Amino acid sequence: MKLSSKNLDARLDTVYDAIVLGGGMGGLSAAIYLARYGLKCLVVEKGRGRSFWMQDLRNYVGLDPDTPGRDIITHSTQQALHWGADLLRGYVEDVTDEGDTLAVKVKVGKKDSLYPIFRTKYVIAATGIIDNLPQLEDMQNVYDYAGYTLHVCMICDGFDMWDQKAVLIAGTEGQINAAFVLNWFTPYITVLTHGLCTVGDEMKAKLADHGYPLHEAAITKFLGEDHKMSGVELVDGTVVEATTGLINMGSVYHNHYLKGIEGLEWDGENLVTNDMAQTSHPRIFALGDLKKGLNQVSVAVADGTLAATQIWRNIRRASEPRKWIH
Amino acid sequence: MKLSSKNLDARLDTVYDAIVLGGGMGGLSAAIYLARYGLKCLVVEKGRGRSFWMQDLRNYVGLDPDTPGRDIITHSTQQALHWGADLLRGYVEDVTDEGDTLAVKVKVGKKDSLYPIFRTKYVIAATGIIDNLPQLEDMQNVYDYAGYTLHVCMICDGFDMWDQKAVLIAGTEGQINAAFVLNWFTPYITVLTHGLCTVGDEMKAKLADHGYPLHEAAITKFLGEDHKMSGVELVDGTVVEATTGLINMGSVYHNHYLKGIEGLEWDGENLVTNDMAQTSHPRIFALGDLKKGLNQVSVAVADGTLAATQIWRNIRRASEPRKWIH
Ligand SMILES: Cc1cc2nc3c(=O)[nH]c(=O)nc-3n(C[C@H](O)[C@H](O)[C@H](O)COP(=O)(O)OP(=O)(O)OC[C@H]3O[C@@H](n4cnc5c(N)ncnc54)[C@H](O)[C@@H]3O)c2cc1C
Ligand SMILES: Cc1cc2nc3c(=O)[nH]c(=O)nc-3n(C[C@H](O)[C@H](O)[C@H](O)COP(=O)(O)OP(=O)(O)OC[C@H]3O[C@@H](n4cnc5c(N)ncnc54)[C@H](O)[C@@H]3O)c2cc1C
Repeated sequence: MKLSSKNLDARLDTVYDAIVLGGGMGGLSAAIYLARYGLKCLVVEKGRGRSFWMQDLRNYVGLDPDTPGRDIITHSTQQALHWGADLLRGYVEDVTDEGDTLAVKVKVGKKDSLYPIFRTKYVIAATGIIDNLPQLEDMQNVYDYAGYTLHVCMICDGFDMWDQKAVLIAGTEGQINAAFVLNWFTPYITVLTHGLCTVGDEMKAKLADHGYPLHEAAITKFLGEDHKMSGVELVDGTVVEATTGLINMGSVYHNHYLKGIEGLEWDGENLVTNDMAQTSHPRIFALGDLKKGLNQVSVAVADGTLAATQIWRNIRRASEPRKWIH
Repeated sequence: MKLSSKNLDARLDTVYDAIVLGGGMGGLSAAIYLARYGLKCLVVEKGRGRSFWMQDLRNYVGLDPDTPGRDIITHSTQQALHWGADLLRGYVEDVTDEGDTLAVKVKVGKKDSLYPIFRTKYVIAATGIIDNLPQLEDMQNVYDYAGYTLHVCMICDGFDMWDQKAVLIAGTEGQINAAFVLNWFTPYITVLTHGLCTVGDEMKAKLADHGYPLHEAAITKFLGEDHKMSGVELVDGTVVEATTGLINMGSVYHNHYLKGIEGLEWDGENLVTNDMAQTSHPRIFALGDLKKGLNQVSVAVADGTLAATQIWRNIRRASEPRKWIH
């Protein structure tokens, strides 16, 4: 059932079997499985997450390589609702460990917001990450190319950059190291730091040795048309020719609501999980980009399968067997 | 490129980066990734594997729940070819460890067969399993229902059996235990052994306590029409009413060709793999149903992603960086 500020009261007394935080690729997979196990579940999705910005999914079995993420979200959200999941448009503010249950506080509505608290036996953290983009005065100019020919994921899109002139945009010296992986796909790499970091002599020498020019001036504008890059203009007037690019500026992790939970094992900002996508907390699972591992749709989707199945096993084993009364 | 007996000679001198054994759900995912990493890969597929018999895929993000496996195979095979993978219709006979390479012997063609041997740096074992079905004189009668209303996978199809009268067909006493999981979905279970095993007193008492009738006589016929079961007829004349069923008779593992390889860790017939789908042999990866873990399409597809990515990393790290010669 679709919940909203108008009808969510009906669920405030429910103890869900699982609440799925984030209805992207992993979360929707979990919801489809949970619902098909006949479990009571709620998906909370804020809208416009990473997979919403995925302009095409290149490498996922069964879908055309130009399928946009937003179509998959719409399709799988319908699917989860169809099998019986609840869905709420809202922003997860906080999760509190109450022992046998967890309390999930959600902000609903931008104006006159409500802050309902839902209770659940298990939480599936599937809120993902979002890529940092270079900040320009005209952000629309960035959005015109990011996700099209200006990529954020080498595994996803390296193939489509093959032997093209490419810019690598990095925000720290460490992030420049991506050049020495990107060169698998193309050696025609120009490195841009957008004025965000200083580059040491060793890195400069390494780039020079590989023949990869470095520009430390800020970017003013991406050039091109119809989402197809032709180059990048810098504040010092330089125009770097490039038909493609990779942004490697790190990402924001949507994990703030878990920072207060005790006993969670982290690897940097990623949650550490076992082979059933369970964190070190027995009632909290984590999927996809939020957890340690490859950031790929296929992986997030499988994580959803695993988490939902483990939760089903736990709940099933703890419940009375259904007998056939003749 | 599509290979056949006519043109495969062209590849006998090639050392592939990876040969994917089995072009089902996991193998095709691996091939799509390998090809998009620009690696030389070959998929060997015998035809009519488990996912070919999957009449509908119920729980996979992005696809309608009535999508048949064979459509996905066709679609993803085209995709892999499009990105540059080689594909050969043939049966993998044997794999030999040669140290730096592995040799894969394939039988091509049913009549006047050829037995080419292909060489590769890595092998991805993705040949899956196949479910044992009850053997009746008229096997077409089994095929008319198996995969439609007579299921082989509870995780996949339990939801679609909800509160229906169901038969559980087991071939050993141990396999009868599935009744005590199936009862999550429906308690109206009749157990059939098709005359294949004797059932001890303890199991009989447990079934009786749950109210699940047991019939040890052989099955003669599945009743119904249009792939929709209405019951099962036994050799002693009994007709068991049931609109659905679960076959839990174990499966054949397509892993014979690996039995001669030293140093592979097994868990029963399943290969044990790490978090990148690598077996205990550094050049052999294993995916999906063949490896330990859940037998689900989503899992096999993610395994393909992981194996291909690890192989790419290994090969990339061992190769000379591409420089930009200005
Ligand atoms: C431009 C681009 C191209 C890509 N191309 C590919 C590709 O070709 N192949 C591939 O495999 N992968 C690709 N990816 C990566 C892919 O999108 C991710 O790996 C995948 O979406 C991860 O799934 P997830 O469920 O972990 O996260 P997401 O799909 O991002 O889902 C997380 C969800 O949580 C929501 N959320 C976040 N915080 C909150 C909160 N506090 N409250 C409520 N909801 C919240 C978000 O809105 C989002 O919908 C691409 C990504 C981008 C950006
Ligand atoms: C009726 C049915 C319904 C199902 N429903 C669902 C569902 O709803 N959801 C879900 O997630 N899963 C479902 N499954 C399970 C799903 O099909 C498997 O988990 C999945 O296909 C596993 O992928 P795989 O790559 O490991 O194996 P497969 O997809 O079976 O691929 C293995 C391939 O290897 C080939 N092969 C085998 N031996 C050789 C050899 N010696 N040489 C060459 N090729 C060989 C086979 O022909 C086959 O194509 C269902 C299965 C069945 C049978």
